[in-house]
Amino acid sequence: MSTDRTKISWNGWGWTAHKDEVAGNEAAWSWLAGELGMPSLLATPARALEDIALAPSRLNPSERAHFAQVLGEDRVRDGHFERAFHARGRSYHDLLHLRAGNLAAAPDAVLYPRGTDEVLSTLSFASDNGIAVVPFGGGTSVVGSVTADPGALKAVISLDMSGMDRLIGIDTTSFTATAEAGVYGPALDKALRAQNVVLGHYPQSFEFSTLGGWIAHRGAGQQSSRYGRANDWLVSAKLATPRGLLTTEDFPASSAGPRITDLVLGSEGAFGVITEATVHIQPAPKTSLYTGFLFHDFTSGAAAIRLAVQEKLPVSMLRLSDAEETRFYRAYGAAGKKKGFGSRLADAYLSYRKFGPDAAAMIAGFEGDPVSVERSHKRFGEIAKQFGAMKIGDSAGRRWHQGRFHGPYLREPMMDRGLGVDTLETATSWSKINALYSAVKKTLEDTIRETTPRPGARGIVACHISHSYPDGASLYFTYIFPRALDGDVAQWLAIKRAATDAIVAHGGTISHHHGVGEDHLPWMVQEKGTLGVDVLRAIKGALDPKGVLNPGKLIPR
Amino acid sequence: MSTDRTKISWNGWGWTAHKDEVAGNEAAWSWLAGELGMPSLLATPARALEDIALAPSRLNPSERAHFAQVLGEDRVRDGHFERAFHARGRSYHDLLHLRAGNLAAAPDAVLYPRGTDEVLSTLSFASDNGIAVVPFGGGTSVVGSVTADPGALKAVISLDMSGMDRLIGIDTTSFTATAEAGVYGPALDKALRAQNVVLGHYPQSFEFSTLGGWIAHRGAGQQSSRYGRANDWLVSAKLATPRGLLTTEDFPASSAGPRITDLVLGSEGAFGVITEATVHIQPAPKTSLYTGFLFHDFTSGAAAIRLAVQEKLPVSMLRLSDAEETRFYRAYGAAGKKKGFGSRLADAYLSYRKFGPDAAAMIAGFEGDPVSVERSHKRFGEIAKQFGAMKIGDSAGRRWHQGRFHGPYLREPMMDRGLGVDTLETATSWSKINALYSAVKKTLEDTIRETTPRPGARGIVACHISHSYPDGASLYFTYIFPRALDGDVAQWLAIKRAATDAIVAHGGTISHHHGVGEDHLPWMVQEKGTLGVDVLRAIKGALDPKGVLNPGKLIPR
Repeated sequence: MSTDRTKISWNGWGWTAHKDEVAGNEAAWSWLAGELGMPSLLATPARALEDIALAPSRLNPSERAHFAQVLGEDRVRDGHFERAFHARGRSYHDLLHLRAGNLAAAPDAVLYPRGTDEVLSTLSFASDNGIAVVPFGGGTSVVGSVTADPGALKAVISLDMSGMDRLIGIDTTSFTATAEAGVYGPALDKALRAQNVVLGHYPQSFEFSTLGGWIAHRGAGQQSSRYGRANDWLVSAKLATPRGLLTTEDFPASSAGPRITDLVLGSEGAFGVITEATVHIQPAPKTSLYTGFLFHDFTSGAAAIRLAVQEKLPVSMLRLSDAEETRFYRAYGAAGKKKGFGSRLADAYLSYRKFGPDAAAMIAGFEGDPVSVERSHKRFGEIAKQFGAMKIGDSAGRRWHQGRFHGPYLREPMMDRGLGVDTLETATSWSKINALYSAVKKTLEDTIRETTPRPGARGIVACHISHSYPDGASLYFTYIFPRALDGDVAQWLAIKRAATDAIVAHGGTISHHHGVGEDHLPWMVQEKGTLGVDVLRAIKGALDPKGVLNPGKLIPR
Repeated sequence: MSTDRTKISWNGWGWTAHKDEVAGNEAAWSWLAGELGMPSLLATPARALEDIALAPSRLNPSERAHFAQVLGEDRVRDGHFERAFHARGRSYHDLLHLRAGNLAAAPDAVLYPRGTDEVLSTLSFASDNGIAVVPFGGGTSVVGSVTADPGALKAVISLDMSGMDRLIGIDTTSFTATAEAGVYGPALDKALRAQNVVLGHYPQSFEFSTLGGWIAHRGAGQQSSRYGRANDWLVSAKLATPRGLLTTEDFPASSAGPRITDLVLGSEGAFGVITEATVHIQPAPKTSLYTGFLFHDFTSGAAAIRLAVQEKLPVSMLRLSDAEETRFYRAYGAAGKKKGFGSRLADAYLSYRKFGPDAAAMIAGFEGDPVSVERSHKRFGEIAKQFGAMKIGDSAGRRWHQGRFHGPYLREPMMDRGLGVDTLETATSWSKINALYSAVKKTLEDTIRETTPRPGARGIVACHISHSYPDGASLYFTYIFPRALDGDVAQWLAIKRAATDAIVAHGGTISHHHGVGEDHLPWMVQEKGTLGVDVLRAIKGALDPKGVLNPGKLIPR
């Protein structure tokens, strides 16, 4: 395993050693309290792992012995940290449970297979013996995809794939690479870059998530405009199922019926365990450029994105913050710092150029060879100008790029201070995006106001366009709110329900890149239709007839 | 219906009025006989429709009356021409049967629904009453996808979708269009171009095939490098099934589980009937350029294609003929024409430039705005030069473009003269393509030699790369051979089997854009794996529990 799990938080995000500079900035917290209509923020620390009791493992001794015989004794683990680490993913909802010491979902054991054969053997035994299996990559799901839920079965094991992390081969003629599914993002990236190629999949979870997880939840990296989503870059997969191994097609294109590879994408461990994958790779970009623009408002920025993607301009990313997100990050970062001459001059200049409170910041990214990067950058500059935008320079882009994986760390200091913070995301067509944006923003603001612990308190609801396509784009909402400490899970659920209902009512998908898991399950019939869900259920029945794989995820019971 | 069916051949390709100039060119035929090692060609005309008897319809009167009540009397047809027209597709194998007067596969009635509700009602009744339903678009399948086979059921109807051909709407904000699935290619193209947009799907069957058919067989048009395959341009579909209507997702992207839309692609009428589709559209190209290059050999031409697609050069088409195809079309077109001074000069120049018998011709196509067309054309010229190619000019490109839909017409005059002619196609990765090419070519040549009616006779086996991708390309084989007149179906099958076995053995897909139908069914387990086929069977079971939809296609019994 290339990533040291003992250095990763079991009840928060990422490296336990990571310290965010804002965490200790009391001026920022005081400013934030004011923004949220709260007189002050409370101390709400998480419970320590050693103070939390775990229920005894429900595996019986002969079952445990069988697994130890197949995998080796050191690869069947049921210690306190192992079971806690694998109890849940890392959503705000998960963190509420974990920080409160609720480890009801802890698996009965964690298994670390070393190869596809061991996975097959494990699944076959689990299926025959009624033991639920939750496939586990990096465990960064933010929709409850790895909750160790036994469903109606007697016990549940977490099948941790991180021991299967070999790069199997690179084909530089066809520009594909094959790797075991448990490889972490940085290890895969390093191995590929050593051959001067990249996959180019950099989700915010990149440092702590795995190839198999990216495929299983049909994800998208921040640079998907250039490198594609998982459904674009996946060539073929090996899917271990209780009925045996399914090796999917690996042709560049085929008309021989529906593509089975497509069914692995988004299967979330409910159809099988992805053990290997072949993916498209590309030459490592010779250069990259991330730069900032300021638009007069979100609408004109979105129009610029639409024009660029519809003319197929080669960009790697166009990330447009709405007015609230633009304002929030500017103010949050500046809080407690004395306003210097440069900052006041910048304010004056923006005002002179008529960039008011509706101003929307964009980070535009370009990667590739220097000529095409310069050409795309120039052309996007023309488009931005056409929509009235002002260039705010490469330093804004560099700052974004440096902090591009750090967003989730902000949750922990906020949760330590009685605050809630969650994100949700969707995608819809360009013709529906304005109505969807307004409806979801208003719903979040209203529901937060209704569920805060005190009158007059309110939330901050920020949004950005994170990914774009010729026919539409994703909207990524971040919302911060005073937590209802006596009912924080119910508060989370009320906000989540209202927002997702609004998304569905306005023609958005329930998830653009987070997945379904447990959290989006109640909307799957609306998303896929009754027959669509029947189809998913039939596929599961063909591959996992006893229903041992990841109960309670993806497919409504 | 926008295309007049009475003017389309029931036992051959396309317009009955079409006359190919080669058809009456006796010098060309005599040259061809020599090439095939035959002393002369025989007259083998097709049987006339009026001389062929059809079995009585197996629908009972109350069933027929039910359909007439739901659809209207004029939309339930069982006349001689209707039943013959819908008996089979238009493959060489189909034409062997049709020209011989074998109409055993004629449907018991042809139904013409006018809307999704009528399709749903028809499917529900058929399912309840054990009547097989074969969805029929333009009927141009070349793999036996529309053979009116009742399977184990008592009767079979052909469900002709050509009455459902409305353009429902165009969304010029999201660049999508929604149309009924029975619309023919030219009618859809005309309606879209009236709004200055295109779908850009131009398969060789374009004039005689429909939107629903393109999706159902997961096809690719000639310009798919620019406009994408059906699996690229399909946004969403309505699939009418015996269990009701399945409306698939229409989001620009989603991570909410496997995409049901993907299962409609390649479903070949076995899961349901596609009644409507929403597709990506693009601005109509302002200009287009098709031009010719000559490479020293197939390998260097393929290397140029690989470089161009791997650097993502925006081309609409790169079509590279192998030496035999290059030689054949040059000689066939020239046969009987006196070799003029210009032609002899060209030969001398080619020889001087050392373009020998291995020379491989390429047509390269570029579409879009003038600046990008010129830029791509220039860059591809550099790539071609790097691989030693010579530009042979735009007139070659224009000729190809003018005749781009005419290839299939050549079969009829050949079949009138005792010849067989068939095509097959595959795709594989760049690292396997040379071995696959050699193996299939040799297998075709050998099997043709073994199955010709006389010693010394032989086939012509030509190939071109028709579509290309970063990780591989398709190979399209055309083969002409002296027909074994006392066993022409067995001869066809022997050749088909040997070639497909060679394709599978060398890592190619059994079809790149023709589909599965009946003809590729025996290789589906090798293509998809046992579990993959089980998955397809499970999906069918969920949507068509009685198994009335298109029996004997796509899914092995």
